[in-house]
Amino acid sequence: MSSTFGTLLRITTFGESHGGGVGVVVDGCPPRLALDEAAVQAQLDRRRPGQSRIATPRDEPDRVEILSGLQDGLTLGTPIAMLVRNRDQRPGDYGTLRDVPRPSHADYTYERKYGIRATSGGGRASARETIGRVAAGAVAEQWLRAAFGTEIVAWVQSVADVEAGPVAADVVDRAAVDATIVRCPDTAAAARMIAAVDAARHDRDSVGGVVACVCRGVPAGLGEPVFAKLEALLAQAMLSLPAVKGFEIGSGFAGTRLRGSAHNDPFVARGDGALGTATNRSGGVQGGISNGEPVVFRVAFKPPATIAREQRTADFTGLEVELAAPGRHDPCVVPRAVPIVEAMAALVLADCALMQAARRRP
Amino acid sequence: MSSTFGTLLRITTFGESHGGGVGVVVDGCPPRLALDEAAVQAQLDRRRPGQSRIATPRDEPDRVEILSGLQDGLTLGTPIAMLVRNRDQRPGDYGTLRDVPRPSHADYTYERKYGIRATSGGGRASARETIGRVAAGAVAEQWLRAAFGTEIVAWVQSVADVEAGPVAADVVDRAAVDATIVRCPDTAAAARMIAAVDAARHDRDSVGGVVACVCRGVPAGLGEPVFAKLEALLAQAMLSLPAVKGFEIGSGFAGTRLRGSAHNDPFVARGDGALGTATNRSGGVQGGISNGEPVVFRVAFKPPATIAREQRTADFTGLEVELAAPGRHDPCVVPRAVPIVEAMAALVLADCALMQAARRRP
Amino acid sequence: MSSTFGTLLRITTFGESHGGGVGVVVDGCPPRLALDEAAVQAQLDRRRPGQSRIATPRDEPDRVEILSGLQDGLTLGTPIAMLVRNRDQRPGDYGTLRDVPRPSHADYTYERKYGIRATSGGGRASARETIGRVAAGAVAEQWLRAAFGTEIVAWVQSVADVEAGPVAADVVDRAAVDATIVRCPDTAAAARMIAAVDAARHDRDSVGGVVACVCRGVPAGLGEPVFAKLEALLAQAMLSLPAVKGFEIGSGFAGTRLRGSAHNDPFVARGDGALGTATNRSGGVQGGISNGEPVVFRVAFKPPATIAREQRTADFTGLEVELAAPGRHDPCVVPRAVPIVEAMAALVLADCALMQAARRRP
Amino acid sequence: MSSTFGTLLRITTFGESHGGGVGVVVDGCPPRLALDEAAVQAQLDRRRPGQSRIATPRDEPDRVEILSGLQDGLTLGTPIAMLVRNRDQRPGDYGTLRDVPRPSHADYTYERKYGIRATSGGGRASARETIGRVAAGAVAEQWLRAAFGTEIVAWVQSVADVEAGPVAADVVDRAAVDATIVRCPDTAAAARMIAAVDAARHDRDSVGGVVACVCRGVPAGLGEPVFAKLEALLAQAMLSLPAVKGFEIGSGFAGTRLRGSAHNDPFVARGDGALGTATNRSGGVQGGISNGEPVVFRVAFKPPATIAREQRTADFTGLEVELAAPGRHDPCVVPRAVPIVEAMAALVLADCALMQAARRRP
Repeated sequence: MSSTFGTLLRITTFGESHGGGVGVVVDGCPPRLALDEAAVQAQLDRRRPGQSRIATPRDEPDRVEILSGLQDGLTLGTPIAMLVRNRDQRPGDYGTLRDVPRPSHADYTYERKYGIRATSGGGRASARETIGRVAAGAVAEQWLRAAFGTEIVAWVQSVADVEAGPVAADVVDRAAVDATIVRCPDTAAAARMIAAVDAARHDRDSVGGVVACVCRGVPAGLGEPVFAKLEALLAQAMLSLPAVKGFEIGSGFAGTRLRGSAHNDPFVARGDGALGTATNRSGGVQGGISNGEPVVFRVAFKPPATIAREQRTADFTGLEVELAAPGRHDPCVVPRAVPIVEAMAALVLADCALMQAARRRP
Repeated sequence: MSSTFGTLLRITTFGESHGGGVGVVVDGCPPRLALDEAAVQAQLDRRRPGQSRIATPRDEPDRVEILSGLQDGLTLGTPIAMLVRNRDQRPGDYGTLRDVPRPSHADYTYERKYGIRATSGGGRASARETIGRVAAGAVAEQWLRAAFGTEIVAWVQSVADVEAGPVAADVVDRAAVDATIVRCPDTAAAARMIAAVDAARHDRDSVGGVVACVCRGVPAGLGEPVFAKLEALLAQAMLSLPAVKGFEIGSGFAGTRLRGSAHNDPFVARGDGALGTATNRSGGVQGGISNGEPVVFRVAFKPPATIAREQRTADFTGLEVELAAPGRHDPCVVPRAVPIVEAMAALVLADCALMQAARRRP
Repeated sequence: MSSTFGTLLRITTFGESHGGGVGVVVDGCPPRLALDEAAVQAQLDRRRPGQSRIATPRDEPDRVEILSGLQDGLTLGTPIAMLVRNRDQRPGDYGTLRDVPRPSHADYTYERKYGIRATSGGGRASARETIGRVAAGAVAEQWLRAAFGTEIVAWVQSVADVEAGPVAADVVDRAAVDATIVRCPDTAAAARMIAAVDAARHDRDSVGGVVACVCRGVPAGLGEPVFAKLEALLAQAMLSLPAVKGFEIGSGFAGTRLRGSAHNDPFVARGDGALGTATNRSGGVQGGISNGEPVVFRVAFKPPATIAREQRTADFTGLEVELAAPGRHDPCVVPRAVPIVEAMAALVLADCALMQAARRRP
Repeated sequence: MSSTFGTLLRITTFGESHGGGVGVVVDGCPPRLALDEAAVQAQLDRRRPGQSRIATPRDEPDRVEILSGLQDGLTLGTPIAMLVRNRDQRPGDYGTLRDVPRPSHADYTYERKYGIRATSGGGRASARETIGRVAAGAVAEQWLRAAFGTEIVAWVQSVADVEAGPVAADVVDRAAVDATIVRCPDTAAAARMIAAVDAARHDRDSVGGVVACVCRGVPAGLGEPVFAKLEALLAQAMLSLPAVKGFEIGSGFAGTRLRGSAHNDPFVARGDGALGTATNRSGGVQGGISNGEPVVFRVAFKPPATIAREQRTADFTGLEVELAAPGRHDPCVVPRAVPIVEAMAALVLADCALMQAARRRP
């Protein structure tokens, strides 16, 4: 188990889908930040199930309690522990899953790794684990905004084979993202995405998609070569999320098809004496360090593994069986993944910002 | 700076393109491993410049000296320090780069981060930094092979818009990879890749590409949820390499277009009482933990930023200039990236294997 | 803030004397341990205030709730989060301390470090912070006992200038320790210690003391040279406790007065083919690694800084004032420190045992 | 093996008494420090053997080569690798030690831990391992001096039963310390210490001692509660040194005998608006955080285990033997330990200073 992430801003998450609750300890948050607790709750609300017809019908309020680290609304610089109680436990739902590992889920690998696993709800591999990340990310985000004016906005770029048109990374905001239940700011594409999710749910199946994210107002100089390059930490952060199979920054895989002369971002003068780049195929990062341009990346989410549709597979003993997973499932996780991606981005950026601050001459 | 990677098998790299040399300290290598020093050198030879006409003409022997951690060819369990001396320094080559940051290179961001930067050769952002990784990875690989029979093979999957046909991940070996100078086992595609590199060099330009990698013989149970999931560590490792803009495992970005019923890997019985999967869209990893199937991933390398072709850009003061980078440059780094990708994969797998071993009941 | 301790068995504590509660997340506990929750509570009961007339009259039940990481009484290998609610908050008690930093307490340094501090109860510098450590240590201890039969016993070796006679480190147990309220197994000395505490309380003053600890059944081979030597981690662990000013292992400071020929521990054959030592001035550790003999160390606790007796000092503005600290104070913390020292020892040993296990050939 | 120390200023040491050399990689040194290489060598010279008749007659020049991280004498912010070649190898000297583990040395525990050990010179447990620490500490010290005017001075406080009189911690400097070969600024005591060492050497025996250290000009606010309290990191740093058995800060073990009213350090106004303390029993640290007063601590070194005098002990098979260790041995290590203690103190303080800097609002 490795449930701690970050160097100076360090989070530790805990909890599974059963048990007393899930949560996080945020260690290293700078002191004297006026923490907006409602904004933390708001990001959790964007993550919770039951928000719309395209998400799982589990309807959990996911109210966060802040246990420590605050006094009169200000952070003390001490660990901020946040707890969300589990409410809607239905261990009975998962009875048939004791014997049959769900294909492409974590049942089999947890059993091989630990010799034991939570027999209900996916345990630590449940999407519920991300609650602590979102709460922590909301704290990090507030600090980034106060310190640098940083804005982080993620959205759904594609669902199955429905791709959004170009999204204006320099201006897109959360209101535009949340305007559709699928969280795609291209409303025409959004309608087709929703139709794709509806169709999958009707077929008791699931669909995947791509979440894009932009971070504006990231100061130049963040990222710690060579192993904690900004893109390396973002990649780790994103691939640590359930169901993620890919990450690309800036031009990504498509950029490999260009020649250097077409790919390079020419420098241009900025008004403030700094340099900017005329294009941003670098995705805001050069040599592992932010260059002041927007940080732009994309994250690939596979279709959820747990589906109600029958699948031929083997049980733990190797016998071939037909499995139709009981329980309520998300046919598509990407709309709910939007605040999770934002949270992980905020945690990485804030940690890098603190590391860079340490380098300043006293 | 964050030049240390890993938890139990931990490497620390040092050195830049100028100065006394580059190298690595490998801490935590298990004791009593019979280290094949020639095999370490062999991987360095696959990485070094000047191997073929499609790589940079810098011809450095890059001989490694093992300074510590061995006795009579056996590892002692103590730090293994390895040093490669710098030979072919031509600081004069880089004179004009003092004033003009190379577009999409690290000159500008290092200056912003540190307030100083190596004025020759790219300093720590030089590909030379990867020497320590390759030497360390070669040690890790030997331990993995001795412990589990693990085989790690990377190859060039695409160069610019030339894509290799399907490569048989279950059998491809390094001999097949090294059969062409571009390190693509699809010889027909390889010829076209080489032509693409030749054309780019002729145009004083550069091309990118994708390196694919398979790790066979990876025991089930490796990877530490939730932040050190196997794919998360691989993603960090790969995105920490120079010029990398993307990472995907298993079905990757393409998998987001499938439905769950088509994407899920059905379990099947293996002879040894374990389960396998009939397909491997998971890429050998489920829930962040290896499942015993081959680990398969791809890494996107952008076209090298340093090109001899003229580019319009700005100097450090913001004045528009025409830059034609002096020095000798790789028109395409992916063939040399093959052993580097293998090295980082080996380091991640060995570290995860040690962490999993710690969990066994005494 | 650095509220995480350990490498493979890693704890993160949170909480201060005000707020919702204090607790800990234990990450990396091996799976399938049958956790005795009552034994966790029992150690917390030994730590809690109000146990006897020589401790602070604050009487808090300190009931622990285990939020995660268990299923049917077995550990899952996932994070074990444990929470103890705060009950007995009397922020009013601390009113006069807003302006006057308590001498030798943390008020002034927290203010200088964070620019803010908890204005009641000492915040994170409160002894209450150790609750999470004790709960986590109780888990670690159970694993050590199950894995190796390890026994950890601490006791009060001295209070003020009252020193216990020699304690038989090879047999002393917790029953003998708890036989007196001062937790000294030398009952004659214990009576004099209690008298010393009573006298100090009568004078509205406080006394310090020394806690000794023995760990029996520690397998040879624990400790990671050079920076995580067993004694180095124990020293860090103990000096991280409130009020600790010194640590010594084996012969300690007294050993510096001996010659090598008198200090060295001769090896002798053990029945099991291993070697033991005829004496144990090494304190069970040689070259930073356990040798199989009992690990024996001592920890110096200063007299508590918060006393009701008047002290001349300065307020935050530098004005000289007379301070008589309001609130209820422990005249002597060492009896309550006994389970805390045991907890930290257990955490260090378990972490080192896991690290050593990682090194075994698969 | 755990050969890395520190969080933001992080060192990794390597090398043993045999092999190509010993050294260190210093990662995270702030950029643009004008590094005085001669001052690094000077501290190594104070550490090296053969300086005087009371140290081992091994005479190794221990010249350091800086391999990376510098340009024109300025640090680049990249890893600074430093190498000292081994010269005076006499593996033959240690022949008889293959079969007999030296009492109270690391031979037996390394064998138990790793299943292999360096059969000459003590390997990684050799005092030679500290060369990397001293070189790294000299870099850290230069940064501290440039940033805060910090001065770190260690001295020999006692040898065997010869104790120095009170040393003025506010003014003692290295010139006073180096005025005697035993590095004790109390010249009368120094003469008796030297006599004690001479007597021990004459008897082919060894003596221990205590090194004291003061760090002046340490800014308030350093140290990261709760596990990286300043005294906790100092304790870890010191107990990680060969032969150390104890650490105490401020009043230490003696302070446990005082009452709180006598032990507390009253606050007094300082001219600069800050508070100071009238006494310094806290040793410059309160609640784990520096308070601006001098940081004062003491380190206990046992008598060296390797002595030429015969000892009855057992060989690896358990047979009783008479051992007279071949080779050349230090009868007393404390004079050479002085720069080592200074180095470790500098590394801890610099790391803490960087961590505190990270907390400043941008």
